[in-house]
Amino acid sequence: INFFCHFVFDPFSDIYYYWLSIISLAVLYNFIIIPARVAFNELEQGDFFTTWMVIDILADVLYVLDFFASFRIGFLERGLLVTDTAQLSKKYMKSMAFYIDIFSILPTQIIYAFALSHTTKFVPPLIRLSKFFKFHRLVAWNDRTECRTSVPTLWRVVTLFTIMLMVMHWNACLYYFVSTTVISPKENRSSFIYPPEIDDEGNPNKFASTAMKYAVSLYWSTQTMTTIGEMEQPEELWEYVYMTIIFLIGVMIFASVVGSIGNIITNLRANRSVFQDRLDHLKEYMGYRNVGKDLQNRIIRWFDYLWAQNHTFEEEDVLKYLPDKLQAEMAIHVHLATLKQVELFQNCESGFLIALVLKLKHQVYSPGDYVCRKGDIGREMFIVKQGMLQVTADDGRALATLSDGSYFGEISLLNVGKNGNRRTANVRSVGYSDLFCLRKEDLLHALNDYPEMREVLKEAARQKL
Amino acid sequence: INFFCHFVFDPFSDIYYYWLSIISLAVLYNFIIIPARVAFNELEQGDFFTTWMVIDILADVLYVLDFFASFRIGFLERGLLVTDTAQLSKKYMKSMAFYIDIFSILPTQIIYAFALSHTTKFVPPLIRLSKFFKFHRLVAWNDRTECRTSVPTLWRVVTLFTIMLMVMHWNACLYYFVSTTVISPKENRSSFIYPPEIDDEGNPNKFASTAMKYAVSLYWSTQTMTTIGEMEQPEELWEYVYMTIIFLIGVMIFASVVGSIGNIITNLRANRSVFQDRLDHLKEYMGYRNVGKDLQNRIIRWFDYLWAQNHTFEEEDVLKYLPDKLQAEMAIHVHLATLKQVELFQNCESGFLIALVLKLKHQVYSPGDYVCRKGDIGREMFIVKQGMLQVTADDGRALATLSDGSYFGEISLLNVGKNGNRRTANVRSVGYSDLFCLRKEDLLHALNDYPEMREVLKEAARQKL
Amino acid sequence: INFFCHFVFDPFSDIYYYWLSIISLAVLYNFIIIPARVAFNELEQGDFFTTWMVIDILADVLYVLDFFASFRIGFLERGLLVTDTAQLSKKYMKSMAFYIDIFSILPTQIIYAFALSHTTKFVPPLIRLSKFFKFHRLVAWNDRTECRTSVPTLWRVVTLFTIMLMVMHWNACLYYFVSTTVISPKENRSSFIYPPEIDDEGNPNKFASTAMKYAVSLYWSTQTMTTIGEMEQPEELWEYVYMTIIFLIGVMIFASVVGSIGNIITNLRANRSVFQDRLDHLKEYMGYRNVGKDLQNRIIRWFDYLWAQNHTFEEEDVLKYLPDKLQAEMAIHVHLATLKQVELFQNCESGFLIALVLKLKHQVYSPGDYVCRKGDIGREMFIVKQGMLQVTADDGRALATLSDGSYFGEISLLNVGKNGNRRTANVRSVGYSDLFCLRKEDLLHALNDYPEMREVLKEAARQKL
Amino acid sequence: INFFCHFVFDPFSDIYYYWLSIISLAVLYNFIIIPARVAFNELEQGDFFTTWMVIDILADVLYVLDFFASFRIGFLERGLLVTDTAQLSKKYMKSMAFYIDIFSILPTQIIYAFALSHTTKFVPPLIRLSKFFKFHRLVAWNDRTECRTSVPTLWRVVTLFTIMLMVMHWNACLYYFVSTTVISPKENRSSFIYPPEIDDEGNPNKFASTAMKYAVSLYWSTQTMTTIGEMEQPEELWEYVYMTIIFLIGVMIFASVVGSIGNIITNLRANRSVFQDRLDHLKEYMGYRNVGKDLQNRIIRWFDYLWAQNHTFEEEDVLKYLPDKLQAEMAIHVHLATLKQVELFQNCESGFLIALVLKLKHQVYSPGDYVCRKGDIGREMFIVKQGMLQVTADDGRALATLSDGSYFGEISLLNVGKNGNRRTANVRSVGYSDLFCLRKEDLLHALNDYPEMREVLKEAARQKL
Repeated sequence: INFFCHFVFDPFSDIYYYWLSIISLAVLYNFIIIPARVAFNELEQGDFFTTWMVIDILADVLYVLDFFASFRIGFLERGLLVTDTAQLSKKYMKSMAFYIDIFSILPTQIIYAFALSHTTKFVPPLIRLSKFFKFHRLVAWNDRTECRTSVPTLWRVVTLFTIMLMVMHWNACLYYFVSTTVISPKENRSSFIYPPEIDDEGNPNKFASTAMKYAVSLYWSTQTMTTIGEMEQPEELWEYVYMTIIFLIGVMIFASVVGSIGNIITNLRANRSVFQDRLDHLKEYMGYRNVGKDLQNRIIRWFDYLWAQNHTFEEEDVLKYLPDKLQAEMAIHVHLATLKQVELFQNCESGFLIALVLKLKHQVYSPGDYVCRKGDIGREMFIVKQGMLQVTADDGRALATLSDGSYFGEISLLNVGKNGNRRTANVRSVGYSDLFCLRKEDLLHALNDYPEMREVLKEAARQKL
Repeated sequence: INFFCHFVFDPFSDIYYYWLSIISLAVLYNFIIIPARVAFNELEQGDFFTTWMVIDILADVLYVLDFFASFRIGFLERGLLVTDTAQLSKKYMKSMAFYIDIFSILPTQIIYAFALSHTTKFVPPLIRLSKFFKFHRLVAWNDRTECRTSVPTLWRVVTLFTIMLMVMHWNACLYYFVSTTVISPKENRSSFIYPPEIDDEGNPNKFASTAMKYAVSLYWSTQTMTTIGEMEQPEELWEYVYMTIIFLIGVMIFASVVGSIGNIITNLRANRSVFQDRLDHLKEYMGYRNVGKDLQNRIIRWFDYLWAQNHTFEEEDVLKYLPDKLQAEMAIHVHLATLKQVELFQNCESGFLIALVLKLKHQVYSPGDYVCRKGDIGREMFIVKQGMLQVTADDGRALATLSDGSYFGEISLLNVGKNGNRRTANVRSVGYSDLFCLRKEDLLHALNDYPEMREVLKEAARQKL
Repeated sequence: INFFCHFVFDPFSDIYYYWLSIISLAVLYNFIIIPARVAFNELEQGDFFTTWMVIDILADVLYVLDFFASFRIGFLERGLLVTDTAQLSKKYMKSMAFYIDIFSILPTQIIYAFALSHTTKFVPPLIRLSKFFKFHRLVAWNDRTECRTSVPTLWRVVTLFTIMLMVMHWNACLYYFVSTTVISPKENRSSFIYPPEIDDEGNPNKFASTAMKYAVSLYWSTQTMTTIGEMEQPEELWEYVYMTIIFLIGVMIFASVVGSIGNIITNLRANRSVFQDRLDHLKEYMGYRNVGKDLQNRIIRWFDYLWAQNHTFEEEDVLKYLPDKLQAEMAIHVHLATLKQVELFQNCESGFLIALVLKLKHQVYSPGDYVCRKGDIGREMFIVKQGMLQVTADDGRALATLSDGSYFGEISLLNVGKNGNRRTANVRSVGYSDLFCLRKEDLLHALNDYPEMREVLKEAARQKL
Repeated sequence: INFFCHFVFDPFSDIYYYWLSIISLAVLYNFIIIPARVAFNELEQGDFFTTWMVIDILADVLYVLDFFASFRIGFLERGLLVTDTAQLSKKYMKSMAFYIDIFSILPTQIIYAFALSHTTKFVPPLIRLSKFFKFHRLVAWNDRTECRTSVPTLWRVVTLFTIMLMVMHWNACLYYFVSTTVISPKENRSSFIYPPEIDDEGNPNKFASTAMKYAVSLYWSTQTMTTIGEMEQPEELWEYVYMTIIFLIGVMIFASVVGSIGNIITNLRANRSVFQDRLDHLKEYMGYRNVGKDLQNRIIRWFDYLWAQNHTFEEEDVLKYLPDKLQAEMAIHVHLATLKQVELFQNCESGFLIALVLKLKHQVYSPGDYVCRKGDIGREMFIVKQGMLQVTADDGRALATLSDGSYFGEISLLNVGKNGNRRTANVRSVGYSDLFCLRKEDLLHALNDYPEMREVLKEAARQKL
C-alpha cells in the first residue's frame, strides 16, 4: 500500500515505457474494432458480441488505471525529477490531457448496454468513439519507441504503413456503413454502393458473408486511396461529393507515402552516398592529376577497408555534439587504458593523462604504408591500438615487430635522443593498423598546465635510453 | 481630413497587413465566383443575381480603395521609410502595378449591366475577368502571412492545397462551360461531355440541378487532375486535344503535389533526423569502441533530455547569423543579470561586463556528472543558471549545495588561491543542470581592453578569501 | 576569303552560341517531323511533300555547314585558345563526333528521291533517321543555354517538359505506325489498335482525318506515359508485349517527372527555407530564454528587412569560392571608392588601400540601434555606405548627422585621441544603415607590410585633431 | 594439389569478384526460371525439360563449389588477412551463412527426379526454391560491383530496374499459377483470372500458347504494380484479398521507384547545382553591388572555364578525408616533380621538399589577370604548372615569357632582393594558367624543422642574383 502511495513514474524509465505499450494496445484495439463494429452489424451479434464485451471491459479498466497513473508521472523541474505527488497531481489536472482523459473514461459501456435495448442498431458502438481520445498515448509511445529502437528507419516505415492501413480500414468501414445504413435500401440501387446482398429470389448471395463484405470494402478503399480508381462510377449527388473528397484525401495520402519513402530511401543511402561522393571526387582528382595506378589502387583499397570496417565517420565529428565533460569521459573510457601501457607515462598523475587522452588522434594505415621513415622530423608519437608493424633498417631488413599496445616515436617527442628530433628507424605497417597518434604540440600544451610532469617525463625517457 | 492627407502605410506594420487581408478576400471572391458564374448560367438568375451584384459592388469598392491606398505605401530608401506622398505617388505610377491596378478597376460592372440586355448569356461575367489582375496582392498577402505565422510549414500545406483546389474548380467550370456552350446541343451528343439534362420525354432529369452539375464537373476535374482517369473516352477531335492538355497539366500538378509534400515531410523531420543521426552515429561509435553500458546509458539519457527540453541546437549556431550588435544585445538580455549576481564582478564597469557576457558558454550536465574534481587544473569558472549541484569532499560527503545563481571556480580564474590554479573541491550535478562557463582566456582577453579592472577583480577576490 | 581561311570559333563566344542555336533548330526539326512523316503517310503527299523537301534541303545544308564549321572550333590547350587550323582539324578528325557527323550528313535526300519510285511507302522518311545523330549538338546547346540564362530553374522545367512531350510524340507516331503498317488491315481488327478509318459502307469516317489521327494517337500516348491507362485492353500477343514495355517506360518517365519537379521545388525554396530555418530557430531560442517582446520584434524586423533587400547571404560566403585575385578585384571594385572618401587614407599608397579594402566587413543596423556608445572600447572604425546616423550626446541630443560617405571611430583606431581608445560620442542609426567596418587588428596587420604608412596615418590623424 | 590445399581467397581481390559474378549468375538463373517452371507446366515438358536439367546440374555444381570455396575466404583480423585454413573454416562454420549454404545445396535435383514420377505436377520445381537461399551472394556481388564500377549512379538505376522487373516476373508467375492450379477449372470461371485456354468447341484458342500466357500475366502484373490498374474486377473473396495485397505492394514499389529516381536525379545534379548555386549567388551579389559588366564577364568566364575543365571542387576538400600519410603521398606524387624544377630548391634535402610540397596551393588565373604587380608586397612565390605568362614592364612591354615549369617571386620569399619584399615586375597570365603558390609563412614554418636548410636557400638565392 505504502508503495502505491509513493510510487511515481520516471518518464525515462523502462517501466513507464512498458505501461505506455500496454495502454497503446488498448487504444489500438479501439481504433481498429470500433469502426468495424459500427459498419458491420453482424459483429454486434452472437459470439462476437461476447468477445467484444470482455475486451471492451478490459480496455476500459486499462483506461481507468492509466487515468490514475497519470497523476503520478514525474516531470523534470530545474533538472530534477519531481516526485511530490501533490505537485504532480496539480500539474496533470491543469493540463489539457486531464480533460481529454476524463472524457475518454466515461462509462460508455453502461450507456451502451442501456442503449442496446432502446435505440437503432448502429448507435451503440458509435458511442464508444470517445475512446479515440486517448490517441495522445499512442503518439507518446511511438515517439518513445523511435528513440529506443536500434532500427529507427525500419520503425518509421512500419509506422507509415500502419497509418496507411488504418486510414484504408476506416475508409472501408465508412464505405460499407454509408452504403447500407444512411442510404436505406431502395428500388433503384446505385451501382456505386455495396452490391445487394440478396439475389433476385431473396436468398443471400456471395456478397452476404461478413468476410466478403469487408474484403470488397477494403478493396474499394485501397483503390481510391492509391489513386488507382477502378471502382464503379458514382450516380447520386452525395456519391459524387464523397468520391471527390476521398480522391483528394487519396492524393494527399499517396503523395505522403511517396514523399516519406523517398525520404527514407534518401536517408538510407545518405551514409553510403556521402562516402561514395568522396571516393568519386578522389577518383576524378586522381584522373585529372595523372596519379599512378599503384597509388590509386592503394587509396581505393583504403576506402574499401574503411567502409568494410563500418567506421566511415571521423571520431571528432561524432563526438563534437557531446558536452565537453561527456567527450572527456568517452575519451577516457576508450583511450586511457591504451595510454597507460606506455611506460613513459606510468608515473604521471591522472589529470595529466586525461588531458593527453583528449588529444589522441586515430589513424588507419594500409598494408605497406610507412608510418615514419628514418631521418624524418618527428612531431608525434604513436601507440598501436590494433595491427602489426615492422621496424625496418634502411636495407629493408625487419629489425623488430610491433603489435597491439606497442608504442614508438616517444623519443623525438621529448627532444632527448642524440639525433635531435629525427626518426631513428623506419616503421612500416604490415596489414591494416589502427594507431593513436599524440602530437608534440599537444604534449607541450598539456605540460603548461602540469609543469611538474616535465621532469617526470624527462626522467622516464632518460631511464629508457 | 488632415490625417488622411498625410497617412502613409508602413509596409511592415500590422495595419498594412490587415488591409492586405481584406483586399485578398475580395480577390479570392472574384477568383472563385467569376468562373462559376461564367459556366453555370443559373447562377446569373433570380436571387443569386442580386447577391452577386451586392458583393461585386463591395469588391469593386475595395479595389478602388486599394488603388488609392497604393499611392500611399511607404518604401525604404537609404534604410529610411519614405513618407513624402509626392515621392510615393511617383514611384507607384512608374511601377507595372499601377497599370495592372487601373485595368482591374475598370467599371466592368456597368458594362456588365449594359451588356446584360444585349449580348449572349455568358459574356457578362466573363468581362469581370479583369478583376483577376489584382492577383499580385494575394501573392503579397501570402508571403507576408508565411513570414508572420508561427506554423509556416502548416501554412505552406494549406497554400498548396488551396492552389490545387482552385485549379480543380476552374477546370470543373471550364468542363461544364465547354460541354454546354461552345458545343451547342446537337443530335449525337458525345458521351465525353456533361450528360443531357433532360430525359427522353424532355423533363429535367437528375443532372439538371445546379448542385449535381457542379458535383459532376468537379468529380470529373478531380479525376483528370489526380491522374486517376476514370472518365468517359473522348470522341471528338477537340475532346482529344482538350483531354491531352488536361492530362499534361494534371501530371504536372500531381508531380508538384508529390514534390511539395515530400519536401514538407523532409523539412518536418529535418530537425529530428539531424538529431537522430548524431545519436545513431554515437551508438555505432560506442558499439565499435566497446563503451560500457553505463556510459552508453548516460549519453543516451543526455540526448533524451536535450530533445525533451527542445534545445537541440547550439546557442552559437542560432546566434551566428545575427549581426554582432544584435548578438551582443541578445547576450546582454539573456546573461547579464546572471553575471551581475557574481559578487566578484559587482564593482566592474558595465562595458567590461558586456565584454564578458559575450563569452559565456552554455553547458548542460546530467545527474551525477562531476563538473570539476579536486586537484584538476581550473581553467574556467561556472555560474549556475538552473539546477542543483553539490560540493563534496573526497569521501563523498556533501559539504554544500549550490543552486540557481550560485557560482564557483572563480578563485582559479584569478590565480589568487593558495593551491595555484587547482580545484579545491569536487562539484557534482544532482539533477540536470544548466551552467554558464567563463573561460580564463576570455577573461584575460577582456582585461586587455579594460586594464583597470584587473585591480578591481584582484581586490574583490582578496576580500572574498 | 582570307577571313574564312583563318576564322576559328571561340567556344565561349556569342557567335558560336548563335551557330549552335541555328543547328539545334535543324536537329529539332528532324526530331519532330521525321517520325510524323514515317507514321502518317498523307504527310508525304501533295503540298506537304514540297514543304518538307524545301526544309529538308535547308536542314541538310546546315548540317553540312556545321560539319565544316566543326573543323574550326577552337579548344583550350595549356589555358590558351588553339587557333592553328591544322591542329583543330586533326583533333576533330580524331574525335568520335567526326564519324557521327559524317554519318549524319550522308545524302539521304538523294537516296530518298530515288527510293520514292521503288520501295514501299514508309521507307523514305525512315532513311532520314541518320539525321538524329546530330543529337550531341542539341545537348551542347542546352548546356550552354543553362549556363547563360538568368532563370536556370525555369529553363530546366522547360527542358524537362520538352523531353516529355518529345517522348510522347514519338510514342504517338509509333502507335499509329504499328497500328496501320505492320499490322496490315485484316478482318478481325483488334480494338486495341487505331480504329478503322472507314465506316461499314467504305466511306471515310471521322477517324480518317490527319488531325484526328494525330490527336487520338497522342491522347493514347499521354495516357500510357502518365500511368493513367484508360486505353483499350490489348488482344494480340505483340500488343501485350508492346503495352508492357510502354508501361515500364511510362513509369520511369513519370517517376523522373515527379523526381525532377520535386527537385526543382526543393531548389526553389532552398534559399527561403534556409532563411526561414534560421528565423525559426531564433524564435524558438528567444522563447526558451524569455527574451522580451521588444528585442524579439527588433530581431524579427531585422530579418524581414534582410529578406526584403534580397541579401540573405553573407558577403564572405559568396566570395570565398573565387580565387584570391578575383576576390581582391571584387573588393576593390566595391569598396575602394568608399575607402578613398576617408580623409585619413588620402595620402596612403594604393597597395596599402587595397590591403585594407580586403578587410572591410559589411554590417547592417536597424533603426534605433547604437553603433557605438560613449565610453566603449573602440576596436574598429566605420564608414557609412548608405543610410543616416546621428551622433548624440549623453542626454540624447543630436549633435550631428552622418550620411553616405561619412566615417567615424578612426581616432580610437590609431590611439591618438586623448581618451585613449574610448569612444567619445554615441552614434545611433536612424533608419536601416549599411556600414563598412574596419577592425583595428586588420589595420595593424596591414601596417606590418607597409611600415612607412604608419607615419602617414599618424600625421593625417594629428592634422585632423 | 598443393595449390588447392593452401589457396585462400582475398576478399578484395579480382579473382574473388569474378567468382562472385559466376555464382551470381547461377543464383539469378534460379530466381528467374524456378517461378516460371512452377507456374507454366509446359516448361517442364519436352525439350525445355532437358535444357533445365542440364542448367540445373551446372548451377548445383557451382553451388557446391561455392560451398567449399566459402571455407577459404580470408578475412581481416587485426588488419591482416587471415590465411590459416583451420581458422577460416571455423569462422565460416560458426556463421549463419554456413547453415543457409548447406540448406541451399541440398540435392533437390534428386528428390525432383524421384518426385517426377509420383507427385502432382507442380511440386518438383517448387522444391528447388531452397536454391533461393544463396541470395546473400547476389547482394555481396552487387555491393562489390557498385564499389568497383566507374558509373555507380547508372549501376543503381540498373539494380533498381532489375528488382522491379523481378518482382513483376514473380507476380506474373504467381498470377498464372493461382489462376490455373489452386482454382481448378470450374463452370463459372471468374473473369478476373486468366482467360480459358480453350474455345467453346474445346479447341485451344489464342490464350493457349506459352508466350501468350506469359505476356498476359506479365501485362497484368505490370498494371497492378504500377498502380495503373486496368485489369478485370475481382469476383471471388480470395481475389479481393489478393488484389488488395498486390495493390498495397504496388504502391510501395511505385513509391520506391519514384523515390529512388528522384534521389538519383538529385545526386546527378548535385555537383552541377552546387556549382550553379555559387554562380547564381555571385551574379545576385554583383547585381546588388553594381559591379561593372567587364568584371562580371571575367568572373562568369572564369566559372565557365572551371566547369569545362571538370575541376569544380577544391583540391583541399577532396583530399581532407584521406589520412595524413596518404595526403602526403598524393601531394608528393602530384607536386614534387614541379618543385624540383625550381633551382632554388635543388640542393635541399628530400624531407624538406616534402614538407614544402604539402603546402603548395593550386590557383587558376584567367586571361589578362595580373598574378602580381610591380611594387606589391610579395608574400608568396609561384611555380607554373601549365599555361603561359608574360613579365611586363610598367608600360606594358613584354619583357619575358614564362611557361610550364617556370617560377617567379622567389626573391621576395627570402628577403634577399634589394627592393625588400616588393615585387620587381608585373606578371600577367596570357591564357588560363595553373599555378602553384608557396606562401612565405609556410616556408618559414618548414625552416623551423629544417634549420640547416636556411643557409642552403640563402646561398642558392645569392648565387642566382
